Amino acid sequence: MNERLLHTPEGVRDIYNAECEKKSVLEHRLHHRLHLYGFRDIETPAFEFFDIFSKERGTVLSREMYKFFDREGNTLVLRPDMTPPIARCMAKYYREETMPVRFCYIGNTFVNNTSYQGKLKQVTQLGAELINDASVEADAEMIAMTVDCLLDAGLTRFQVEIGQADFFRGLMEEADIDVEEAEELRVLIENKNMFGVEEIISRKEIAGRKLPDGLKEVILKLPELFGTLDRLLYVKEKITSTRALVAIERLESLYALLCEYGFEEYITFDLGMLSKFNYYTGIIFRAYTFGTGDAVATGGRYDSLVGQFGKDAPAIGMAVLINQLLSALARQKLLTEPAARNTLIVYPKAQRSSAIALAKSMREKDCRVELLLADGAFSREDYVAYAKRMNLKRLLYLGEDGNPKEIFVDAVSESCGT
Amino acid sequence: MNERLLHTPEGVRDIYNAECEKKSVLEHRLHHRLHLYGFRDIETPAFEFFDIFSKERGTVLSREMYKFFDREGNTLVLRPDMTPPIARCMAKYYREETMPVRFCYIGNTFVNNTSYQGKLKQVTQLGAELINDASVEADAEMIAMTVDCLLDAGLTRFQVEIGQADFFRGLMEEADIDVEEAEELRVLIENKNMFGVEEIISRKEIAGRKLPDGLKEVILKLPELFGTLDRLLYVKEKITSTRALVAIERLESLYALLCEYGFEEYITFDLGMLSKFNYYTGIIFRAYTFGTGDAVATGGRYDSLVGQFGKDAPAIGMAVLINQLLSALARQKLLTEPAARNTLIVYPKAQRSSAIALAKSMREKDCRVELLLADGAFSREDYVAYAKRMNLKRLLYLGEDGNPKEIFVDAVSESCGT
Repeated sequence: MNERLLHTPEGVRDIYNAECEKKSVLEHRLHHRLHLYGFRDIETPAFEFFDIFSKERGTVLSREMYKFFDREGNTLVLRPDMTPPIARCMAKYYREETMPVRFCYIGNTFVNNTSYQGKLKQVTQLGAELINDASVEADAEMIAMTVDCLLDAGLTRFQVEIGQADFFRGLMEEADIDVEEAEELRVLIENKNMFGVEEIISRKEIAGRKLPDGLKEVILKLPELFGTLDRLLYVKEKITSTRALVAIERLESLYALLCEYGFEEYITFDLGMLSKFNYYTGIIFRAYTFGTGDAVATGGRYDSLVGQFGKDAPAIGMAVLINQLLSALARQKLLTEPAARNTLIVYPKAQRSSAIALAKSMREKDCRVELLLADGAFSREDYVAYAKRMNLKRLLYLGEDGNPKEIFVDAVSESCGT
Repeated sequence: MNERLLHTPEGVRDIYNAECEKKSVLEHRLHHRLHLYGFRDIETPAFEFFDIFSKERGTVLSREMYKFFDREGNTLVLRPDMTPPIARCMAKYYREETMPVRFCYIGNTFVNNTSYQGKLKQVTQLGAELINDASVEADAEMIAMTVDCLLDAGLTRFQVEIGQADFFRGLMEEADIDVEEAEELRVLIENKNMFGVEEIISRKEIAGRKLPDGLKEVILKLPELFGTLDRLLYVKEKITSTRALVAIERLESLYALLCEYGFEEYITFDLGMLSKFNYYTGIIFRAYTFGTGDAVATGGRYDSLVGQFGKDAPAIGMAVLINQLLSALARQKLLTEPAARNTLIVYPKAQRSSAIALAKSMREKDCRVELLLADGAFSREDYVAYAKRMNLKRLLYLGEDGNPKEIFVDAVSESCGT
């Protein structure tokens, strides 16, 4: 036997037993929260034409996608992101709709990142997209729903950090920095390489474009521009870009609304937050908690993406990264072990009619029942050991008299009647 | 805008709105049935190393798999079948376990069939695998669970057709037909090309291997050997292969057990049933109903597949093909339309605090609530029309006095209190 036959490819894994049950419980609970906010399920295919995720869409890099061919030679990709497919669906099925449409989904996305990062390449996302609503009220709703999801998950200590994609674009306009240089700057700022940032600014200045002092100061301070919003408002005095100023005002309105929701304690602002997803046009956000350095939820406004599919529609989305959230909950010891729920009925061959009838009547009462024909090779102790290692709630033995005898019961579980 | 941007690749599609909700309701109901039989969830990755599905495993043909490469150049495939990955998990995580292990799953499988068949290339399977149980009682349990699933789905008229992979292998042994000729015969029989079958038999006879008359008769009659089991038992007199005879006796024991479950009316036998999955070693079954020519559930025993991954363990599995089942239910008009459940609250800007508070308190009572800031561009009639086309249950307008006024209600829905 080839040992490799037992392996899964790099970056993907099996989930089974208690871990799988915890994941499923979490998914159901948060999915229900999205339904409470009025979102409705949509399922898109696991793979799409490459064009849906091509560079113009502003999503994951081409080299980080799993690509293959269909029989006609078209390039297909495993979806690295759920937002562009849902934007496609909106343009396709709701072309005439002018009022809000709410979609939600749970599904896997696939990013072929370089393996040294040790990141999962298949992750489960539970998310929602609110389309045809450009209001700051919609922004607030999506962030409030994110907070509700994290509270439902059992987290108590977390922060949703909010930035504004248009703030950075406004600064770049004011500094006369083009899209490519801006992308260069974004990467430098993300890596907190401020010498690199200074170098680009000097390069501009040598070329004769003197940056106003205030603007220069704000750009160089971007990595530090986080905290409560009132502490950040001073930057309004330093810049003149209308676009950047409007972006900050949007955050002020948003904060007022989040106070109405009563969620201000979970909110931080980060004017230096930049997203590698270029489709974001307004607020962007990421939720963080202890136990994982990666975000457990993300989202943002993308007012021009649906338009790329042929329908002009403002939109905002959010997604909970289920695997990250599960591992954070595990490290914070906030996951309860699944209750033992299964009853095992062991029966001798002569009692098989009674065993089948007993299992049927218990299942009708919503009990989970496993049937097992007694095997001479196993002793009573073997069955008890099996019941324990399988986390069974109860072990019944159907004796020759046809009456079930309880020979093991997990004391902490609730009873499920025979 | 490139029109193709709106398309999904050949053989895959979007599912949204009422259809998506019906699918989700069906999946939850049947998934619960698998839990009632004691099965526990497992999730395996959407793609695996090619070897997991290579020819020796006896699963889907290589040319019908979606293949691509990882960064190291290994061939990966989108899983075309759930059974080999779960066999892999059993060998990997339960190497020492000698007593039954029950896994269940819901997930998508991907088969790159030639498109002229018009079949879906991504389908949702809900299935279960019972490992380490070689008994006919386990066979009966899996078929009973399949019947229960189809009853839970709302079907009343369906048949589970049961065959035995070892019956055909026994006949082939008795006729001294090798594996490759047997595969040739299998395809001919599947296509009901009995002239082709006769030709192969004549070829054998010309080569000097005279087949016993009874055996020849049974092989040529294979496509007709279906119906109630008692009508088929006469073939026992025609053949001498112990393997084939044991296979028939297994079906007799199985039938007796299915009568104990009270499910005999849903059972038919088919000695000519052949599977293209070579890993089946015992009973195989397929459930059919009206409204679709394809099976809505399938399954079978595979006693040597787990062994290929390094652990000898008998096993049997079943899977419900959710897309097929949904389309059969739709054609039989057995799908109920999802109830309208969402309440829409439209509010003027001055009432946004009250609107947020009202939505919050309704959600706490498990009501699904959509919030919408009133927009001067829309009239009251526009909102009512929107509520109707979105299948909303109720439309509340939060007037300047802060009190919600009901301006539309779907009469058939249950109320969800304010």
